[in-house]
Amino acid sequence: MEGVPEGHPRAVSLAARHVLVDGFKRGLVCEPGLIAQGRGEAFDYLLGERTNGFAKKAMEAAAATLLLGKSPVISVNGNMAAICPRGIVLLAREVGARIEANLFYRTDERVERVREALKEAGAREVLGGKGSGETKIPELFSERRRVSRKGIYSADVVLLALEDGDRTAALVRMKKKVIAIDLNPLSVTSQTATITVVDDISRAIPGICMAAERMRGKGRKELRAIAGGYDNKKNLGAALLAICRRMKELSKGMSRG
Amino acid sequence: MEGVPEGHPRAVSLAARHVLVDGFKRGLVCEPGLIAQGRGEAFDYLLGERTNGFAKKAMEAAAATLLLGKSPVISVNGNMAAICPRGIVLLAREVGARIEANLFYRTDERVERVREALKEAGAREVLGGKGSGETKIPELFSERRRVSRKGIYSADVVLLALEDGDRTAALVRMKKKVIAIDLNPLSVTSQTATITVVDDISRAIPGICMAAERMRGKGRKELRAIAGGYDNKKNLGAALLAICRRMKELSKGMSRG
Repeated sequence: MEGVPEGHPRAVSLAARHVLVDGFKRGLVCEPGLIAQGRGEAFDYLLGERTNGFAKKAMEAAAATLLLGKSPVISVNGNMAAICPRGIVLLAREVGARIEANLFYRTDERVERVREALKEAGAREVLGGKGSGETKIPELFSERRRVSRKGIYSADVVLLALEDGDRTAALVRMKKKVIAIDLNPLSVTSQTATITVVDDISRAIPGICMAAERMRGKGRKELRAIAGGYDNKKNLGAALLAICRRMKELSKGMSRG
Repeated sequence: MEGVPEGHPRAVSLAARHVLVDGFKRGLVCEPGLIAQGRGEAFDYLLGERTNGFAKKAMEAAAATLLLGKSPVISVNGNMAAICPRGIVLLAREVGARIEANLFYRTDERVERVREALKEAGAREVLGGKGSGETKIPELFSERRRVSRKGIYSADVVLLALEDGDRTAALVRMKKKVIAIDLNPLSVTSQTATITVVDDISRAIPGICMAAERMRGKGRKELRAIAGGYDNKKNLGAALLAICRRMKELSKGMSRG
């Protein structure tokens, strides 16, 4: 793969692609993870490749919910570990969450790679994988249902990104509050989660962390007001309308061109 | 990778993902090709995963333009060879086009794999690669500019898919008619090409082939009228509006839900 030309209009997106292909070569990311990155890129492009107002609102609600959680857990897959390992570690510290390596296309080796990447980034403990006391999510089949007993299984709040829809739905049915980072406002995960941050994980993870930092002085009552005042359906509707507006603007530009 | 569950609402898209990952394992597809597939998936989803009216119009114009061409060439990359090798061979026969293996992330080995896949699918001749008389496209750098002298270099009409924008623009500057298959109506390739078919290649290639079949009896005058009456800017605008309409519909469904 060639380097990204300087001044390229889509340099950030191209750089992210490099990071992910590198993660693939290091055994962190799997083939479907590369395809998922592409889907995200397309939606990010339609959303203007920036953090929109609706994403900021969701980040605030996510930070408050994580801070209110008794046992919050950040579920980390290969793409997340490749893109923002350090951000995950900082967010976990800020909100007092545990970190669990949890893969959809699971192999023991890849779980190990993800754990290593997070430890290199400063994580003291990473749950998930062999010997971490695994159990199963009800209703899900095959390797997808394996989770850590001390982690996702017993968590009251789970933050996840680029997650399979069935798995998100199963966690919601287990009465967990699910915070999803997903660029497709129409995905089953986006529609099912308690809070959906429609933004790229490279911006969403630090964004939630900064929101939590700003909330350091706040009491539980204030945090509950922030989390309780959030409406996910309304917020996802705003994301769809933002895409629509951008399409319309761009199509006008074209018919003039 | 697990099998696609029967009756899954996105079974077709998941099956395509399997085909591509398989193509990757066979050395046809490269990592950025997997990411590109994901981008296409997202746009295809927004377009309703079907051939829309604007795509049908573009297919008609594409078929007429290929039939009118003196030396039309179909440029084939790894994704195309993985997804629809047989369709490419049938289209080439129908319109009397040559086939050239031409890769953006080029290695001699991958060119060879693409040539093999096309030959297995029935192609008698596949240009491109070592020993096929290569030359260079002006203004482009590195391996991206290598093309076959008997193929793309001397072609008057080039059909390509999932192509890099700079390369599409360079071919247009060489006064070639470029037919692009691209699911992103906003990409540089879509905006630069003479005719853009905004549809998935698995539907676009057979669609153009069928349009050409229907034109078998037509004279050059009639074909020129079809090709000449086509307006690419207008057609791309229609694609953007279709995405916008679908977003709006879906967002209404959500606020009711």
